[in-house]
Amino acid sequence: MTSLLVADIAVLVTNDPAAGPGLLGEIRGAALVVEHGRVAWAGPAIAAPACDVRVSASGGAVLPGFVDSHTHLVFAGDRLADFTGRMSGRPYSPDGISSTVAATRAAPDEVLTANVARLLGELRAGGATTVEVKSGYGLTVADEARALAIARQFTDETTFLGAHVVPAEYAADRGAYVDLVTGPMLAAAAPHAKWIDVFCDRGAFDESEARAVCRAGMAAGLGPRLHGNQLGPGPGVRLAVELGAASVDHCTHLADADIEALAGSATVATLLPGAEFSTRSPYPDARRLLDAGVAVALATDCNPGTSYTTSIPLCIALAVREMGMSPAEAVHAATAGGARALRRDDIGVLRPGSRADFVVLAAPDPGYLAYRPGVPLVAGVWKDGRPI
Amino acid sequence: MTSLLVADIAVLVTNDPAAGPGLLGEIRGAALVVEHGRVAWAGPAIAAPACDVRVSASGGAVLPGFVDSHTHLVFAGDRLADFTGRMSGRPYSPDGISSTVAATRAAPDEVLTANVARLLGELRAGGATTVEVKSGYGLTVADEARALAIARQFTDETTFLGAHVVPAEYAADRGAYVDLVTGPMLAAAAPHAKWIDVFCDRGAFDESEARAVCRAGMAAGLGPRLHGNQLGPGPGVRLAVELGAASVDHCTHLADADIEALAGSATVATLLPGAEFSTRSPYPDARRLLDAGVAVALATDCNPGTSYTTSIPLCIALAVREMGMSPAEAVHAATAGGARALRRDDIGVLRPGSRADFVVLAAPDPGYLAYRPGVPLVAGVWKDGRPI
Repeated sequence: MTSLLVADIAVLVTNDPAAGPGLLGEIRGAALVVEHGRVAWAGPAIAAPACDVRVSASGGAVLPGFVDSHTHLVFAGDRLADFTGRMSGRPYSPDGISSTVAATRAAPDEVLTANVARLLGELRAGGATTVEVKSGYGLTVADEARALAIARQFTDETTFLGAHVVPAEYAADRGAYVDLVTGPMLAAAAPHAKWIDVFCDRGAFDESEARAVCRAGMAAGLGPRLHGNQLGPGPGVRLAVELGAASVDHCTHLADADIEALAGSATVATLLPGAEFSTRSPYPDARRLLDAGVAVALATDCNPGTSYTTSIPLCIALAVREMGMSPAEAVHAATAGGARALRRDDIGVLRPGSRADFVVLAAPDPGYLAYRPGVPLVAGVWKDGRPI
Repeated sequence: MTSLLVADIAVLVTNDPAAGPGLLGEIRGAALVVEHGRVAWAGPAIAAPACDVRVSASGGAVLPGFVDSHTHLVFAGDRLADFTGRMSGRPYSPDGISSTVAATRAAPDEVLTANVARLLGELRAGGATTVEVKSGYGLTVADEARALAIARQFTDETTFLGAHVVPAEYAADRGAYVDLVTGPMLAAAAPHAKWIDVFCDRGAFDESEARAVCRAGMAAGLGPRLHGNQLGPGPGVRLAVELGAASVDHCTHLADADIEALAGSATVATLLPGAEFSTRSPYPDARRLLDAGVAVALATDCNPGTSYTTSIPLCIALAVREMGMSPAEAVHAATAGGARALRRDDIGVLRPGSRADFVVLAAPDPGYLAYRPGVPLVAGVWKDGRPI
């Protein structure tokens, strides 16, 4: 057994309230010991045990690897023209999804796989050590199963999102599409998926359709999560809580009853400021959620239509600038919050027994992620105790 | 003479209206020829002349290197606590500058030099091939001269900003400080500087003080530029036009008369969205300026108090999201606009005779700089015909 000491850590973010003060459980002048891909010890450097190998964090902050709990990486093509049009005043519409569906269906496996690999490389370089990946640009039995099989080559956190939009060929018979999603498409997708997801919003699926999709997925052994309340007020959040979903994502337009339901639940509100940035939409009010005691996660929503960023640090900076979060709250949401949104207790935290997934910053404090927006501060990324 | 062919360019941004359509003078399927550190030829790949050496842009876009015409890189210490306080609701005040002044005065030359080198490295990695650097955290004769001598080691575009704020020791006698700036401090600074600058705003210098500072600098052979209209309406823009300044920077709070004055002048409006981002202030209305025919530049304002970013791509994305600029207008402002703000015609453009300062993107279109915020898309940076 080789033990590894990570030394010269200005601030270690543990997210473990027992380890240090504040929301982040910070230890100043810290060290971290890694064995067998797990954290073996975390504490003040002066008390660190002897180890076989020593690496230096060069006086940077160390924090748990980011957990990006919401991405749509399996696609082909881009939507630059959509984006440019929106920036000159056209409103966002979910209709644009169909152009990505057409490009994705037409693409060979190799193109889709290379695209996932490229984007995942960007995410990892930006500090994301766990990434959820959704389907949702196939929308046929074969194309959804293919998307998930490709995603599963890269991550265990795969999500079946056949209910992303109703594809054009089913526009006249929505019920038949829901039957397809909950029947043969689910059967083909479930072996490659951990989660079931549905876009419950205007222009996508209504409450009863969304409930049917989630219940079918749950019956097939998948955990429920929802897209809700992005484009306007709606039933998404309440449905997510009713179903015991791990997360409801977007949460841009919330009623008081939505906040109350979330606060009394085990459902995380996952906020996706990249989508508001790139659709020029109002940002969700994270302050209101946090003050009500709701668990909050931050994720990229990486997709070619509405949020083509892979930068969790940008999401942290936007959450602080635009959504009323403190730098510490934003860092917590992008680490421990993301882990909770995936119902994981082995990541998003650095304490004995947790996975040795961590990020070394070229900055002395995690607050720099908001203080220095746009600057690539992630100097090192470790997953399962190894640098990547 | 070795000639270099840059091939496989999806889109070449020339900023030369004679070379191609649109504001950016775009050439699709282009090549670029470099000789003696200058552009020798730019045009469609199919018509490119034979060259000694060939490099590939790998199907990315190529654009003129960014010109960051406004930075404050010579300082010590950070202001993370200021930033965190502001994000929890405290308003911005120029008073915070004094804490950086104290840290900068106390720092040895080696610390200041290393800090400039580090930040300039970030700027270059982000695609900035020309960077203006101001003094303004010394505010004594010796410390201002020292800051400029350090800056001059890295760039010819150095700016004397002794009139950044009135330092605490002169609070009771502002006139004496203006006399110092326009007398012995200017005499010590001028050999190391190209430009004179003054912060003409509430809490800094008033109109008559700012005029005196600029006129003294001009008499010493320095070109005038101003910080104006950042914190509220004021005389900065009109004074800049009166003096024939190359640029007036910030321009957040403008009256119609300010816009009219700029539109009929050779003074560029340099917009600094990083400062609005990190002070949570309203953004300047670039659309209003552009529609009136004002020349606009984008720059980082990199400084530890109000905009600790080195990312021109972030500034482009913010200009599009927040300031009403199209992606093409933002790219133009960060290249040709910055060059004009420094009264340079050899940079910010790629046409025969201009400097071979250019950026290769890992993206097929310059619009990706706004479409993919936070993603490090700058794959290669060339200055004077060499990769850096």
